[in-house]
Amino acid sequence: MIERPLASWIDGIEGDQIPADDRGLAYGDGLFETILLRAGLPRFLTAHLERLTRGCEKLGIAFESALLRAEIGRAAALAPPLAVLKIIVTRGSAVRRGYRPTGAEHARRLLTLWESAPVSPGALERGVELRLAETRLGENPALAGLKHLNRLENVLAARECTDPRWFDAVMLDSAGRMISGTMSNVFVLRGHTLLTPRVVRCGVAGILRAVVLREAAHVGLDAREQDLDPGEVVVADGVCVTNARVGVVPVQRLGEHSIPMTDHWRRLREHVEALDA
Amino acid sequence: MIERPLASWIDGIEGDQIPADDRGLAYGDGLFETILLRAGLPRFLTAHLERLTRGCEKLGIAFESALLRAEIGRAAALAPPLAVLKIIVTRGSAVRRGYRPTGAEHARRLLTLWESAPVSPGALERGVELRLAETRLGENPALAGLKHLNRLENVLAARECTDPRWFDAVMLDSAGRMISGTMSNVFVLRGHTLLTPRVVRCGVAGILRAVVLREAAHVGLDAREQDLDPGEVVVADGVCVTNARVGVVPVQRLGEHSIPMTDHWRRLREHVEALDA
Repeated sequence: MIERPLASWIDGIEGDQIPADDRGLAYGDGLFETILLRAGLPRFLTAHLERLTRGCEKLGIAFESALLRAEIGRAAALAPPLAVLKIIVTRGSAVRRGYRPTGAEHARRLLTLWESAPVSPGALERGVELRLAETRLGENPALAGLKHLNRLENVLAARECTDPRWFDAVMLDSAGRMISGTMSNVFVLRGHTLLTPRVVRCGVAGILRAVVLREAAHVGLDAREQDLDPGEVVVADGVCVTNARVGVVPVQRLGEHSIPMTDHWRRLREHVEALDA
Repeated sequence: MIERPLASWIDGIEGDQIPADDRGLAYGDGLFETILLRAGLPRFLTAHLERLTRGCEKLGIAFESALLRAEIGRAAALAPPLAVLKIIVTRGSAVRRGYRPTGAEHARRLLTLWESAPVSPGALERGVELRLAETRLGENPALAGLKHLNRLENVLAARECTDPRWFDAVMLDSAGRMISGTMSNVFVLRGHTLLTPRVVRCGVAGILRAVVLREAAHVGLDAREQDLDPGEVVVADGVCVTNARVGVVPVQRLGEHSIPMTDHWRRLREHVEALDA
């Protein structure tokens, strides 16, 4: 069974083919965002666009935020009640062979709209299971935090999730520090403090991650970034994962280790779900 | 002035558009090869195909080498006297959203044929200039050696070559070890021994690199892999870079450091150029 998008647009025009000379394909020379649409409204749109803009600046991709905003609006108008809009921005077609861009490339926007499904109530109540990935994340401060298109490490780690019971795989960096899931950020609860790994050497600065760091105080929790090794998960008072599509999702197990469930996750999740924007 | 390919084929059919749902675009989930065609003959074809096959195995991409061989033959028949054939193999269109492949994807082949130009005799005589890149290579043994599509680090380092006098930029890994150019491998001459960095943590196992390691003895040089720091370039008896398109190219300067020229490079280059296949 092939999962297909409801619609896709290239530079604002409906279509599902891109020029084969796109540098996104050749080198992963671009960025992406995955935005949840709820009742046709893009969640945390400003934060997504800010991250995309920051990424384009770091990669030196000239990017038309105004055009993209209009295209997101048109896509959102077609969205079913729960949908995901994936945005890819690449440096565009190559002006010549080779890694070095000339600066004359025109960034390309690819939007795809997908129907989404809510996380099952059972998974939210019991918590999900994570695997510890064998595939590591290489460290590069120049790319850390960005949601760029160089995601082979995530693909290889996700391939390790051969059992459908694994919701995601937790990835470590080369030094053995815990960084994130392949498609989620991780929070560890210690007492009333939420800790999440820094994403300064590798990993993605998730939009929900920033929301949780900002909003935790509203449900009585401190939250901060801190280097964590996977052993600290085992002795945690709770673990959750976050991403833009699933929100805050409690974790009941990492590999062979059971993780205590706590009502903090329900309150944090409900608080985040109730936020506008 | 836009440099265009002479022709391009997707899965053997002439065309220049690929499905927008290709995982090569989404995640850099694929590999590539750049093959030199001289008088219509692909150079070191077996080595290129072996590396591609090894890469596909590592990434778990099911790959049809027989079809690709036939397509290379048809492309080569159209090639001008000096040409480059770029091959991209991706995991193909996504069967569903997300990083994890289902295993039901069909690998996609993209071939593009380009006219090439010989390295100028002046550059071969005087040697080329290299810059030391500020952008580092992240380390990941699971991906090291492969010519995969996650090349943002190379793009960023190549962007540093703002002056056309720089032929390439030399990249270090996170620990400061010299690894390679953005589009070339590097050899350092010490007495009669050629040293080239290992590519077990990052970097690409270049086809010409393997040829030089194998053939050096024929021109009276030892050759081996060894960790090198950039300081060893400064005290070297000579430096050259290699890739499939340019062959063996002597280096006269790395950043502010002059590098002695030696006649070994001419002999090594001529020996390699004279090889069949």
